[in-house]
Amino acid sequence: MSSTENEKARILELRQKHIGSNVSLHFASSTPLLILKGEKEFLYDEHGSSYLDCVNNVAHVGHCHPHVVAATTRQCAALNTNSRYLHPALVDYSARLSKTFPEAAKLEIVFWVNSGSEANDLALRLAKEHTKKRGVICVEAAYSGHTDRLIGISPYKYGRKGGIGRPKSWVKEAPLPDVYSGKFRGDIADDSLGQKYAAEVDKLLSEYDLDFKAEQKLKSMRDARLALSGDEGADEESRAMRYLDECLLQDDGLSTGCGAFIMESILSCGGQVMPPAGYLKRVYDSVRKHGGICIADEVQVGFGRVGSAFWGFQLQGPDIYPDIVTVGKPIGNGFPVAAVITTREIAKSFDNGMEYFNTFGGNPVSASVAHAVLDVIETEKLQENALKVGKVLIEGFNALYAEFASAPVCIGSVRGTGLMVGLECIKGERNGNREPDGECCIAVKLHAYTHHKILLSTDGMFDQVIKLKPPMCFTEEDAKNTCLAIREGLLLVKERRMGMKE
Amino acid sequence: MSSTENEKARILELRQKHIGSNVSLHFASSTPLLILKGEKEFLYDEHGSSYLDCVNNVAHVGHCHPHVVAATTRQCAALNTNSRYLHPALVDYSARLSKTFPEAAKLEIVFWVNSGSEANDLALRLAKEHTKKRGVICVEAAYSGHTDRLIGISPYKYGRKGGIGRPKSWVKEAPLPDVYSGKFRGDIADDSLGQKYAAEVDKLLSEYDLDFKAEQKLKSMRDARLALSGDEGADEESRAMRYLDECLLQDDGLSTGCGAFIMESILSCGGQVMPPAGYLKRVYDSVRKHGGICIADEVQVGFGRVGSAFWGFQLQGPDIYPDIVTVGKPIGNGFPVAAVITTREIAKSFDNGMEYFNTFGGNPVSASVAHAVLDVIETEKLQENALKVGKVLIEGFNALYAEFASAPVCIGSVRGTGLMVGLECIKGERNGNREPDGECCIAVKLHAYTHHKILLSTDGMFDQVIKLKPPMCFTEEDAKNTCLAIREGLLLVKERRMGMKE
Repeated sequence: MSSTENEKARILELRQKHIGSNVSLHFASSTPLLILKGEKEFLYDEHGSSYLDCVNNVAHVGHCHPHVVAATTRQCAALNTNSRYLHPALVDYSARLSKTFPEAAKLEIVFWVNSGSEANDLALRLAKEHTKKRGVICVEAAYSGHTDRLIGISPYKYGRKGGIGRPKSWVKEAPLPDVYSGKFRGDIADDSLGQKYAAEVDKLLSEYDLDFKAEQKLKSMRDARLALSGDEGADEESRAMRYLDECLLQDDGLSTGCGAFIMESILSCGGQVMPPAGYLKRVYDSVRKHGGICIADEVQVGFGRVGSAFWGFQLQGPDIYPDIVTVGKPIGNGFPVAAVITTREIAKSFDNGMEYFNTFGGNPVSASVAHAVLDVIETEKLQENALKVGKVLIEGFNALYAEFASAPVCIGSVRGTGLMVGLECIKGERNGNREPDGECCIAVKLHAYTHHKILLSTDGMFDQVIKLKPPMCFTEEDAKNTCLAIREGLLLVKERRMGMKE
Repeated sequence: MSSTENEKARILELRQKHIGSNVSLHFASSTPLLILKGEKEFLYDEHGSSYLDCVNNVAHVGHCHPHVVAATTRQCAALNTNSRYLHPALVDYSARLSKTFPEAAKLEIVFWVNSGSEANDLALRLAKEHTKKRGVICVEAAYSGHTDRLIGISPYKYGRKGGIGRPKSWVKEAPLPDVYSGKFRGDIADDSLGQKYAAEVDKLLSEYDLDFKAEQKLKSMRDARLALSGDEGADEESRAMRYLDECLLQDDGLSTGCGAFIMESILSCGGQVMPPAGYLKRVYDSVRKHGGICIADEVQVGFGRVGSAFWGFQLQGPDIYPDIVTVGKPIGNGFPVAAVITTREIAKSFDNGMEYFNTFGGNPVSASVAHAVLDVIETEKLQENALKVGKVLIEGFNALYAEFASAPVCIGSVRGTGLMVGLECIKGERNGNREPDGECCIAVKLHAYTHHKILLSTDGMFDQVIKLKPPMCFTEEDAKNTCLAIREGLLLVKERRMGMKE
């Protein structure tokens, strides 16, 4: 073995020894990559070979962007302490970030955290304090983060292997508003589809009302039982009722009901799913009418990625105002920083006497890095680039859609906008049952890697979507090369499948 | 106003406009500090005035240590991507960290996260997957982090202002094993006190058994009721029972019982409380006998701070092996990184088919920074320094203990080890009821700030402890100056109180 081979083998061995086996490694079953350098939209292995990165929406302005590196270096050397001291970077960036939202939304208070997971977890705490209701409505196939509470609102986790199902005491799950393979199908611009999917959320809101009644009944059964035996009743049934009281009916100041509706503006892990026209507006209105608040999870899609807007929720119209927005991944181009942005009113409810302190959140380095990322988005016009290059990608995908129109390889749908796009593969015909074809997507991903040094990912509940969310400096040439590689992969799968039939 | 005054006023105004009001600011009620530079154990304001930092255990090897800054810069410029690619820094540091634990503990698998909160939250997930039990025993006055689930095991939060109390369905709270003002009092070296406090945990473990029986009884009541009405029974009572079923008795594969015992090796927010001899050994044995696992939270105390050992749990003896250790704050000297270290067996239970992915966790920058921090701890012999300077602090505190022995200013106890120490102030006499004197501690803190430019903190449930946990490069001279400042503060409080009596 050469010395680089030795080194790679050594790293792999140490990884198996010291890293949890469910912490996944790309291409683990073929040849995992040792990556030592990143620049713009490329990653470089130990031999200096470059790989086109179509996966990493975290390296938003390009891997190791010099302006961001310079800001990190400068601030690291000057000061890195917590938010209990005044610092200009913290407040200036907070003001700058809040100005990126529609003014009418009044999203002006920023809570600084270290990851999208911390952001969504905190958003749920804010919602609970503001509404005093414990319920949360999430969306089928969604992923919201890795804290214990967030696993509970992530069907992508609790509903797949290793999951223990939906936590029924506080979570309800709305159907995926997917106009391609969801419950109601048709044109994404069709407002009546938005209406139908929004009506599904209304149903869940009504279920909470039934839950409330059921809880009241349980309370009266408990009271009746305890009145029979007295508070000190030591018989089994009384003890059971006291246990019920402690566990389910405890006086925690919260009531059964929908405290929050949370949704990514484009469902990323769900497979680049965009809701139909008019969906969010109706859902937000209904949720608020029932006393809940609305959280837009922009961790994956925010900061200009969708091309035609700076924030994903703006795709649903100019009059869409979430009560809370969470941001993460791209905000620091890989530096661990994230944030929750909300209204003064909600922030005030959260200030109930309990301090919120986040050790690293909002330190001067995080804030300076975030500043530098926004600088680059603006000066290099990356949102405009996402719009332009995204169109090239969609054109290329549309050509593939025309070419791969039926079994054995069939593209069912082309979706997304800007640099947040995907191709869904299905088994059988387009008029068929739209059974997901994850096997095809995975084969294409592998082919692009091994033959083109292009890194793709697959997603959706069944890996049925080939997904692109590359650094925002992705070029038209990158887009064309990627479409060529995908086409070659699809052709190979087709040939293989036709060969197998012979 | 001068231009620096203008700038400070501007920052303060923006902070009020954009930062949540429960994100606290040091000395907000007197003069908050604008800090622009950090070096070693000093922070510098906008005029270049230095402040001795006795608070920040995050800047472990000293603010802006050049070796750590250099590592950050180097790695930021080369590569910052996620752990799905092989990288030497990730695995080498994981191996290096695991070697710092007693070999017999077999703490060899490292999960990388971004904060102590993420670490403790993940530790609870690991415990749940491994034991299939949902219960957690925490310790009175403890703080474990800011995620929603961690607030639920933090009496320091749920039991104080704004808290909604203990989540009775899964959390039990053991008494604070504080030999000074706790339930059982005496000498910290007295093994019988360790035994008494450990017996309190045994009681909680037995309560879980009663809960289990109560839950079984509830299930049979539900079954009986549903048998009467049939599954479809639409009467109120049946609906209530089905609701009970969904909420409390759902089939999530978990059972009522103690899945984990979690405790900081020295309770930091609790007020620098060290458990008596023999406590952890007995508690760990009992918890394991009941099928639970033991988590040592080393987020605040790890990495040599306690002086005589590298990890806080080692203070309880060479045969103490937690099943999970969580680390955070100091690991990256302020860079947002943290980790969960556990055994292969527990990591294997966690690998149940569900991927664990942490976007920023274990990126090459985090790992390189953590390496650099360990380098400095070793080359500058900071653990040894903590031991040496900690002794000077304790000597100084003992002198103050001798001097302030009775009302109106009375030091009740001197506690801690290494650079994790505190002074508890009480009202009245040492033989009295040991009523906490937070007012005195807060006055001393303010005096040290305004007259000596020394930054102290107060903690404990009633702010009754003056707390020191400075950067580990703290010197003997710093220690002596701090003791002088505290003495002056105590004298002033005494004079003021005596004057008020006249």
